[in-house]
Amino acid sequence: MPVPLTKESDVDVLIIGAGPAGLMCANALAKAGVDVRIIDQRPKKVAAGQADGIQPRTIEVFQSYGLADRLLREGNQMHMGAFYNPSIDGGIECTKRVPVVNVPSARYPFMVTLHQGAIEAIFLDSMTSLGIQVERPVVPTSIELSQDDAVLKDPSMHAVKVVLKHLDVPEGKPDTEIVHAKFVVGADGAHSWVRKSFGIAMEGEQTDYIWGALDIIPETDFSDIRSLCVIHSNNGSCLVIPREGDIVRLYIQLAETDAVDVQTGRVDKNNMGPERLLEVARKSFHPYSISTLHDVQWWTMYIIGQRVASRFSVNERVFIAGDACHTHSPKGGQGMNASMNDSHNLAWKLAHVLRGWSDISLLQTYEFERRKFAQDLIDFDKKWSGLLSGKSRTELPQDGVMHQEFVEAFQATSLFKTGLGIHYLPSAVVHTQHQAYASNLIIGQRMLPHVFVRVADARPYEIQDLLPADTRFKIIVFTGDARDKSQLDRVTKLAADLEQPKAFLNRFSKGNIASVFDILCISAAKKGSLKYTDLPALLRSHWSKALMDDMDMYGRAGGGGYEKYGIDSRGVIVVVRPDGYVGMVAPFEELEDIASYFASFMHVA
Amino acid sequence: MPVPLTKESDVDVLIIGAGPAGLMCANALAKAGVDVRIIDQRPKKVAAGQADGIQPRTIEVFQSYGLADRLLREGNQMHMGAFYNPSIDGGIECTKRVPVVNVPSARYPFMVTLHQGAIEAIFLDSMTSLGIQVERPVVPTSIELSQDDAVLKDPSMHAVKVVLKHLDVPEGKPDTEIVHAKFVVGADGAHSWVRKSFGIAMEGEQTDYIWGALDIIPETDFSDIRSLCVIHSNNGSCLVIPREGDIVRLYIQLAETDAVDVQTGRVDKNNMGPERLLEVARKSFHPYSISTLHDVQWWTMYIIGQRVASRFSVNERVFIAGDACHTHSPKGGQGMNASMNDSHNLAWKLAHVLRGWSDISLLQTYEFERRKFAQDLIDFDKKWSGLLSGKSRTELPQDGVMHQEFVEAFQATSLFKTGLGIHYLPSAVVHTQHQAYASNLIIGQRMLPHVFVRVADARPYEIQDLLPADTRFKIIVFTGDARDKSQLDRVTKLAADLEQPKAFLNRFSKGNIASVFDILCISAAKKGSLKYTDLPALLRSHWSKALMDDMDMYGRAGGGGYEKYGIDSRGVIVVVRPDGYVGMVAPFEELEDIASYFASFMHVA
Repeated sequence: MPVPLTKESDVDVLIIGAGPAGLMCANALAKAGVDVRIIDQRPKKVAAGQADGIQPRTIEVFQSYGLADRLLREGNQMHMGAFYNPSIDGGIECTKRVPVVNVPSARYPFMVTLHQGAIEAIFLDSMTSLGIQVERPVVPTSIELSQDDAVLKDPSMHAVKVVLKHLDVPEGKPDTEIVHAKFVVGADGAHSWVRKSFGIAMEGEQTDYIWGALDIIPETDFSDIRSLCVIHSNNGSCLVIPREGDIVRLYIQLAETDAVDVQTGRVDKNNMGPERLLEVARKSFHPYSISTLHDVQWWTMYIIGQRVASRFSVNERVFIAGDACHTHSPKGGQGMNASMNDSHNLAWKLAHVLRGWSDISLLQTYEFERRKFAQDLIDFDKKWSGLLSGKSRTELPQDGVMHQEFVEAFQATSLFKTGLGIHYLPSAVVHTQHQAYASNLIIGQRMLPHVFVRVADARPYEIQDLLPADTRFKIIVFTGDARDKSQLDRVTKLAADLEQPKAFLNRFSKGNIASVFDILCISAAKKGSLKYTDLPALLRSHWSKALMDDMDMYGRAGGGGYEKYGIDSRGVIVVVRPDGYVGMVAPFEELEDIASYFASFMHVA
Repeated sequence: MPVPLTKESDVDVLIIGAGPAGLMCANALAKAGVDVRIIDQRPKKVAAGQADGIQPRTIEVFQSYGLADRLLREGNQMHMGAFYNPSIDGGIECTKRVPVVNVPSARYPFMVTLHQGAIEAIFLDSMTSLGIQVERPVVPTSIELSQDDAVLKDPSMHAVKVVLKHLDVPEGKPDTEIVHAKFVVGADGAHSWVRKSFGIAMEGEQTDYIWGALDIIPETDFSDIRSLCVIHSNNGSCLVIPREGDIVRLYIQLAETDAVDVQTGRVDKNNMGPERLLEVARKSFHPYSISTLHDVQWWTMYIIGQRVASRFSVNERVFIAGDACHTHSPKGGQGMNASMNDSHNLAWKLAHVLRGWSDISLLQTYEFERRKFAQDLIDFDKKWSGLLSGKSRTELPQDGVMHQEFVEAFQATSLFKTGLGIHYLPSAVVHTQHQAYASNLIIGQRMLPHVFVRVADARPYEIQDLLPADTRFKIIVFTGDARDKSQLDRVTKLAADLEQPKAFLNRFSKGNIASVFDILCISAAKKGSLKYTDLPALLRSHWSKALMDDMDMYGRAGGGGYEKYGIDSRGVIVVVRPDGYVGMVAPFEELEDIASYFASFMHVA
């Protein structure tokens, strides 16, 4: 028998749950050098099935952590969507083809599909290289938040007490541990123990749409099997999601009679099985045939619930993220994306507060930004699920008008679905007053991708690759055309102003500018007409920091960035948050407004 | 003391020397599953300095082995070249800027610079994952080739006996080993022991150009320090090669008095040192200042020899590759590229012969193809070194005409320098008779990069990524527009012909087509107008094998491939060699000519 209670320890952040939300959080914090632990009750990571769709914005986020290469190498890419509708002869026919992603600013104009275990492995390997492992199987048995206001307000205090039980402990060793954490992140799924422990309600309702999901390696004469297909047939609806290798995920609409136990009114997996699911799908595919080459890889069935947690945080000390905060249909390909973007939003804020840079109130913006997103997600999901499901298999959209409406909805929701439209509203970290100076860099949205050229060596760079998720604020100075003498004077004066001890750079970094801020400059000048040494030294701490808005030596990429961003020719300063979102914009003359921005959440030395 | 002689062993291929040529060879053979060993006399791999320039074609070759990602991640990219010439005020000024690579078909329009040790590490890590390690320090002490004609002609016989001495052997263990190898590759450098053992002469001569090379982390006000610079000053010539991180390689022309021992007439490193070298460079940079931030990382000096070995092979059993075959100036950025492309050319041929697929005579094409290249390289080097060096520091090209000539030569030689123009002449593996059917896919040159779109899922693919260096011949069937009934009939008939037991696919693969051949098809049809299932099954053994000549869903890439390649609208078959070079082209009706192609080096079942 394990020995009861002995161990007691401190940690800055304890993450409960090692799914996509927990792992994104743990990796981001480990990368930031934060003292973090992550536990999970499962003895092993997910092996198959589960979530599998990675949206374009999430690929950008992976890239910001240096993890996109592997994702792109291992995953399948979905570029083409095909809509199938009933044909006159009783079968189905393709009525429309569209790009899966309908957003011109997409850096990655496709979705990646890859099973959840492979995505988790990307984080796990990255964390291993940073010296962090998931501790498993470990379950939390109690959680307690300090009632002392002074403790709660001081982020250096270990305000949360969590008791953990290690399930896999050798004979004679203690299996219980008391952890005192400064912060706890509950990324423990739809049935979140953390959420329930604090009595946080899930608001919303259950639908009566019942769906099954099935991963197979298909044998079929349906030639669109490698496209994202939405099949509306007179025999039911079906979604085709091609995946890594030859795997295909099918989402299959079920009738109540297929899936619900008439006694209890609940979904009953015993009534269903992979073969029966495939049998239902087969009816939608008619006249095409489909079967599975090997055993079914994974399957499930579910009723869609559409709910959002009433709070995402308890006193900015305990947070919930991912499925713990929001549940919805998996068929919009949103779940994993929403979850990982929750903790991407939270992680840098935790790091800033733990380092003493930012006030603990910064953490309020997590719920503010992500709960709004979750509500939008449920609104999207209601529309999307409704269009996909109809009321029953016999009342599906079949006529031209309804089909047209469906295609339009698919296209119109692309900005939301892809995550590229995520828009955080004004808050301590989003100040919108000078939007007009960079009219197309929407404050609160992600920094738009674009290729600029390095002044020193004319190498083209995607600007997003120069904005890594390294917890620093990026100060991008668009210098205008610094060949113009009066403009160069303005830029020189700006640099001098920025260098003042009382200017925001020094004020909010205690003089160690590079630890908090990464400064880039982008000139409107063309290749060969500007030397990087012409620019004030503050704006190019290294030769690699000076860029130009011009094409590369081959004319293959770059150019037109000022116009695309709507940058004022007199230049502008763009503040990009550590998570890649535009936090504010200001003309050279309004440095005090930038100072006010940082003062609204950061401490002055 | 180690115990003398006991060990005796067999191996298919023994590689002597673990520089770039040897490692490329070992990695390629290991990937092909060949029984291979590689030895090196140095106890450790190169740590700094040495060769550092990777040309665009070599990047493509790395990509064909799955190794380009890391090369691109770790290396510096040179995009911009700048020419400096004497200015009126006695200093230097930039007179011209050009792209470093001047070849529109370049997939990677830049050079990568990275120190040789980092490049070797890419191979070493790949080899480790394949279970192969360099054995070191080990020196060969004797090599002997069988005199028996019957043995020499039978590639299954171990015709070469090599005695090795292991230098780092524990007390009491044998330090001498007799290795019986089927083939030996001498990749043992400019002073090749293998070459000397067989008395192979180096033909050519020494120049009287003396240069120094220096790796520094510069502190400078010279704003082109991150461009490839050719500096011609009244105080000497200098080449600037920016490298990984902040390192810069300088090549510095020396006067005889700087470098040559008056007594012996030989280059004397004792007369020179890194500080003096930098002092000489400084004169060329005037009026710009340059110094080194840290200690000099690496330096050397040399007189350029321009020589090619009279033979590259002894009885197609012992080969030499890399610097063992050719020595020339390092300043064209060729050395490592020529070396690695030597063994890239050799490796698949060795694998084919060892598997019994091809006749041993195939190996004659190694010398035929690579010695011709080496001679072209020396011709290029003579021109280039002459232009760079002049006779002495005071007779440099200074006036407009000579400068113009220099810039033109820089541009005109780009096709050669980049490796993109490598052109293998007609031989057993290069049959040119049907060139007109694909007028721009030059037979004997590399397969031109281009983006095509997959029929099944509209995902854009660079065709080169579908032609990995996996020892298989790629059979690319350009089907024409198979929506046209008569053309589809032609394609269907072609597939039926190809499936015949006597057709080349079955004849030269003993019925196991996929082991020897990888078949792709590329249709001229547009997205949505063709199903992959419309094409004959032989031409799309997997859904991923059917491509279209069309743009991706976003109109960002692809389209116009038939025109770019000059493909006849009636379709054509293109045979791409395992090393990525076009081996032959044939219309559908001339399958017998393709059979003749393979019969000229392969065995029939």
